[in-house]
Amino acid sequence: MDVTERGAAEWLDGQDPLGPLRRRFRLPAGDTIYLDGNSLGMLPEASVRRLHEVLTREWGEGLIGSWDSGWLTRPQRVGDLLGEHLLGAAPGQVVVSDSTTVNLYKLAAAALDARPGRDVVLADRNDFPTDRYVLEGLAAARGLTLRQLDTAELAAPTADAVAAAADGRTALVVLSHVDYRSAAVADLAAVTAAAHAAGALMLWDLSHSAGALLVRLDEAGADLAVGCTYKYLNAGPGAPAFLYVRRDLQAALRQPIWGWFGQADQFAMGPAYDPVPDVTRFLVGTPPVLGLALVEEGVRLLAAAGIDRLRGKGMALTALAVELTDAWLAPLGFGLASPRDAAARGSHVALSHPDAARLRRELVRTAHVVPDFRAPDRIRLGLAPLTTRYVDVWDALDRLRRLAG
Amino acid sequence: MDVTERGAAEWLDGQDPLGPLRRRFRLPAGDTIYLDGNSLGMLPEASVRRLHEVLTREWGEGLIGSWDSGWLTRPQRVGDLLGEHLLGAAPGQVVVSDSTTVNLYKLAAAALDARPGRDVVLADRNDFPTDRYVLEGLAAARGLTLRQLDTAELAAPTADAVAAAADGRTALVVLSHVDYRSAAVADLAAVTAAAHAAGALMLWDLSHSAGALLVRLDEAGADLAVGCTYKYLNAGPGAPAFLYVRRDLQAALRQPIWGWFGQADQFAMGPAYDPVPDVTRFLVGTPPVLGLALVEEGVRLLAAAGIDRLRGKGMALTALAVELTDAWLAPLGFGLASPRDAAARGSHVALSHPDAARLRRELVRTAHVVPDFRAPDRIRLGLAPLTTRYVDVWDALDRLRRLAG
Repeated sequence: MDVTERGAAEWLDGQDPLGPLRRRFRLPAGDTIYLDGNSLGMLPEASVRRLHEVLTREWGEGLIGSWDSGWLTRPQRVGDLLGEHLLGAAPGQVVVSDSTTVNLYKLAAAALDARPGRDVVLADRNDFPTDRYVLEGLAAARGLTLRQLDTAELAAPTADAVAAAADGRTALVVLSHVDYRSAAVADLAAVTAAAHAAGALMLWDLSHSAGALLVRLDEAGADLAVGCTYKYLNAGPGAPAFLYVRRDLQAALRQPIWGWFGQADQFAMGPAYDPVPDVTRFLVGTPPVLGLALVEEGVRLLAAAGIDRLRGKGMALTALAVELTDAWLAPLGFGLASPRDAAARGSHVALSHPDAARLRRELVRTAHVVPDFRAPDRIRLGLAPLTTRYVDVWDALDRLRRLAG
Repeated sequence: MDVTERGAAEWLDGQDPLGPLRRRFRLPAGDTIYLDGNSLGMLPEASVRRLHEVLTREWGEGLIGSWDSGWLTRPQRVGDLLGEHLLGAAPGQVVVSDSTTVNLYKLAAAALDARPGRDVVLADRNDFPTDRYVLEGLAAARGLTLRQLDTAELAAPTADAVAAAADGRTALVVLSHVDYRSAAVADLAAVTAAAHAAGALMLWDLSHSAGALLVRLDEAGADLAVGCTYKYLNAGPGAPAFLYVRRDLQAALRQPIWGWFGQADQFAMGPAYDPVPDVTRFLVGTPPVLGLALVEEGVRLLAAAGIDRLRGKGMALTALAVELTDAWLAPLGFGLASPRDAAARGSHVALSHPDAARLRRELVRTAHVVPDFRAPDRIRLGLAPLTTRYVDVWDALDRLRRLAG
């Protein structure tokens, strides 16, 4: 198959079992190609209907009574759905609440409390900023050392690197499953085992893998995880995030923000904080009911597709982008800033170019292709398997080569 | 005027300049009377339209581009609107973000950091549970003492009580402006002055006053405040909360959850956390865009009514409830569990009765009146000035006396 022929991409779309699911989304107008689903996923049509129902029926008509007819347990229920279909987590270990950053703070602080006497947090200096900032803040507040791996550009942190850097002083290791720039994928089980070998707890950020990759938290023996829902989960801008705490750690860990939604016998409103002995203790304030409904709709769509098929298509989409980059863009000064091996990368592809910022602006303005830009020189093509066609990849890279040529 | 005649309530509704605004809400079906707007406010019709627009136009069509055309600054913009119309706060001091509990945690922690060497937090043992739990958690984590006032049941914490309890060890005083059970109102300016006299910072919880009372944060010299938006602000279940930080404190205070939305030059994604030198530093993760739109719609409706008129009607509504309680319910064993002086209470009225839990259930089930219940023996009538009519108060208490009689 000569992928530089558009017919190849058309053929792949014709074979794609996920193709029909794309019509369940609000599609961009005209000839716009949206390749930023790894930053903000597209709007499912079911979410429009569902939100209208939550607004008018649950809130408008049900009013306060809706707390007892579903709202109170929705963070756990949606968490279980997410855990089952996308995270490889048995029920009772995932809740949807707060933002990714707040969840990271809660879980990291809880983990540090559980490893008294250890004074090092291990992270990666190339990880997503909010992760690094949260850990920097926790380290500063507690007089701990934030030790940072310096993982090579297109690689993911390895078990060997963690084994070399973690020791008896290490309380916690925090890493992303998929790198937000290069899409390099870390080995969940091996890295977790390396952290455990040093006696540290392991916290994963799944923001760039949930809904795109096979995540097997239980199988990997992961302790803790967080992630966002507005990327591949299509739950909308600023939708609530999720957190995972392995069941046997739940009763022992205590997060720092003692709120009434984590309280046992909540409505007794007793004098002292006494957290629920399960994952509910990681909730804080009143749950964001509307956002929870959108997360549920997003997860349902991904569950209908099946994570195996989503991962398969994600690998094929990024492989097509890599092949076309080699054929068309490398001669124009573009570099591939993602791993070459499809199994080693998530569902986006990064391209480097000295003039990337300008090219990205032009691409949006004149060529109607919407990728992401990451400073200083990266164009990031997010190829969300549910909403991206093979012809979208072909056409987008075709337009880019004309623009840059 | 004999308020035990229904005609009196009808006459009051006829004179009410806010009466027509009630039709801007989705009203309960049939003969249901909703008196729980201080727990969950009703659904504005404009919010249904607005959310549809945010979903379909801003998210569905605008996609990632909407971050640059409004979303990024919405927490500050909606905060300013709220500050101007309802909180007596000049621009640049209020943002909408996270939950009330998370905001309380952020501001309380920032305040404690700003008073090193002081080891006491002063609160009230009858305050809302989540406030007490957050402070209990912070005190436990930092080895501080949580000292608690024991304010008498129908009273609010006074400046004298704070002056007597606060001293050179007191870092922070945290109190509610309006008590969640009795609706007793604290004197914002006098209590703040008492906290300041001891060298402590003052943090107010405005959850039960924002949108119902004249709150004059700037004038009172308050340092910090938080509050929720799903009560009188009608922003929906679990809508994002607000926080206020007085302008001249902003650059000196640093909250504990170091997230990328508080970072200066956010998208440079630099190596170290360097927070924006204004109220933006109190943001954490990606803002909840949909919830922000609902807060904006809610505030707009209250702004159209005018907080002076809202407060006036709230006082009149609760006065009517008190008069009818005296006339009808006191002989049946009910006690008034709110201040008698309208100026000393917020916009709800609490009634005590030994059999309150059962009566509340019956009231909902057979009489179609929906008040709130607070353990162990309180029925709480929330009289939201925008959505409650005088005849609603009359009919509700009439049905309650028949049920209890």
